[in-house]
Amino acid sequence: MSGWVAVAGLGPGDEGMITVEVREALAQATDVVGYIHYVIRVAPREGLTLHPSNNRVELDRAMHALTMAAAGKRVVVVSSGDPGVFAMASALFEAVEGFSGVVPDIRILPGITAMLAAAAHVGAPLGHDFCAINLSDNMKPWKLVEKRLRLAAEADFAMAFYNPRSASRPHQFARALEVLLQVCGSERLITFARAVTTSEEQIVTVTLGEATPEMADMQTVVIVGNSATRRVGKWVYTPRRAG
Amino acid sequence: MSGWVAVAGLGPGDEGMITVEVREALAQATDVVGYIHYVIRVAPREGLTLHPSNNRVELDRAMHALTMAAAGKRVVVVSSGDPGVFAMASALFEAVEGFSGVVPDIRILPGITAMLAAAAHVGAPLGHDFCAINLSDNMKPWKLVEKRLRLAAEADFAMAFYNPRSASRPHQFARALEVLLQVCGSERLITFARAVTTSEEQIVTVTLGEATPEMADMQTVVIVGNSATRRVGKWVYTPRRAG
Repeated sequence: MSGWVAVAGLGPGDEGMITVEVREALAQATDVVGYIHYVIRVAPREGLTLHPSNNRVELDRAMHALTMAAAGKRVVVVSSGDPGVFAMASALFEAVEGFSGVVPDIRILPGITAMLAAAAHVGAPLGHDFCAINLSDNMKPWKLVEKRLRLAAEADFAMAFYNPRSASRPHQFARALEVLLQVCGSERLITFARAVTTSEEQIVTVTLGEATPEMADMQTVVIVGNSATRRVGKWVYTPRRAG
Repeated sequence: MSGWVAVAGLGPGDEGMITVEVREALAQATDVVGYIHYVIRVAPREGLTLHPSNNRVELDRAMHALTMAAAGKRVVVVSSGDPGVFAMASALFEAVEGFSGVVPDIRILPGITAMLAAAAHVGAPLGHDFCAINLSDNMKPWKLVEKRLRLAAEADFAMAFYNPRSASRPHQFARALEVLLQVCGSERLITFARAVTTSEEQIVTVTLGEATPEMADMQTVVIVGNSATRRVGKWVYTPRRAG
């Protein structure tokens, strides 16, 4: 049987949010590759080799997957959430560009990405036009992040932020909140959704005027509403109608 | 047993892209409410009443679901894709605002939304910052759509468009392509993904210079890359790095 690579999304954490096709790919795999925190979510079994790796070695991991698949293995590269949203799918295609062997069969298997799981648990804050921004400056200059924040706020998008705040750059998220406050005003709703769908899930919604940088860490997805986003009971939602 | 409403995403079409928790909610339901094209995807069984309705009656449908749940029924409101993305979740909360009874227990169960299924089948075009825009002007003035397109292009977001073109407003998508061509230039990649994950799936990627309005209809999700989006083999992807 010839080898393949499937880049699969495990969803945000809850096993109930995994799709049927991702389960099937894992059942057929000979090898699972990924960041250690995601690989430990895959049940060990005979005939399956787990290859956990550290964070920030995405290209090495992708190249390893391609090499094993080219040698006949059935390899699942696991991401949390959706592999196509700030995760392993882009890294895999970057590796394909540099791969010297015959490129094996590749499939991308989507999953429930963190912002959409968070949105579901808070209500429907992304029910109108929205954008997704990775606030980490590992992959782009901070000035580009700030430009995007400003333009997205001017466009009155609802916004979801991934990787909002790390210990190594705590001041940047504070700056992001400043920019948003300037353009959106102090009454705009902002939701901090941490460890969504896990036993440690914490969801807090406040106004931009009340928000502080400490409300986010790297396990938090932050959702900022548009100008029409509002509360109804314990829920937060964005109406379908605008303008 | 007390009633509840679950607003559940059936994914883009392929049964393999449904989550486990959505299947479980459907198995427990007494009633399924939704647009007829989505309700027919639910297998009939004894004890389950299907309530198919026409398009554009979202509020009536949501109110019907709340009323039945308040009377003790276990009601699943089905959306294709993800209910939180241009679908029934926002309509349900609009109905909650106008509901005079005791509001029943509500859960939103996310699904694989069309743009992320399309992205997976084309590669990873949404692998960097991106936005999602509903091009229909049913719910907002066209000038707001155009403003968002322009600002999103200036921010160098990849973009996904839902409901790009209907028979009643064919000229608007032509105008959207004009705006994009002005800001992004003729070499920018654009993907037309029709009926994604169904037996009729058709995916075509061209440049903005080659794109014509006829390439889209209401079953199409359109994805426009950012300035770094490129092809590798048969795939289209956006690198993780920018700037």
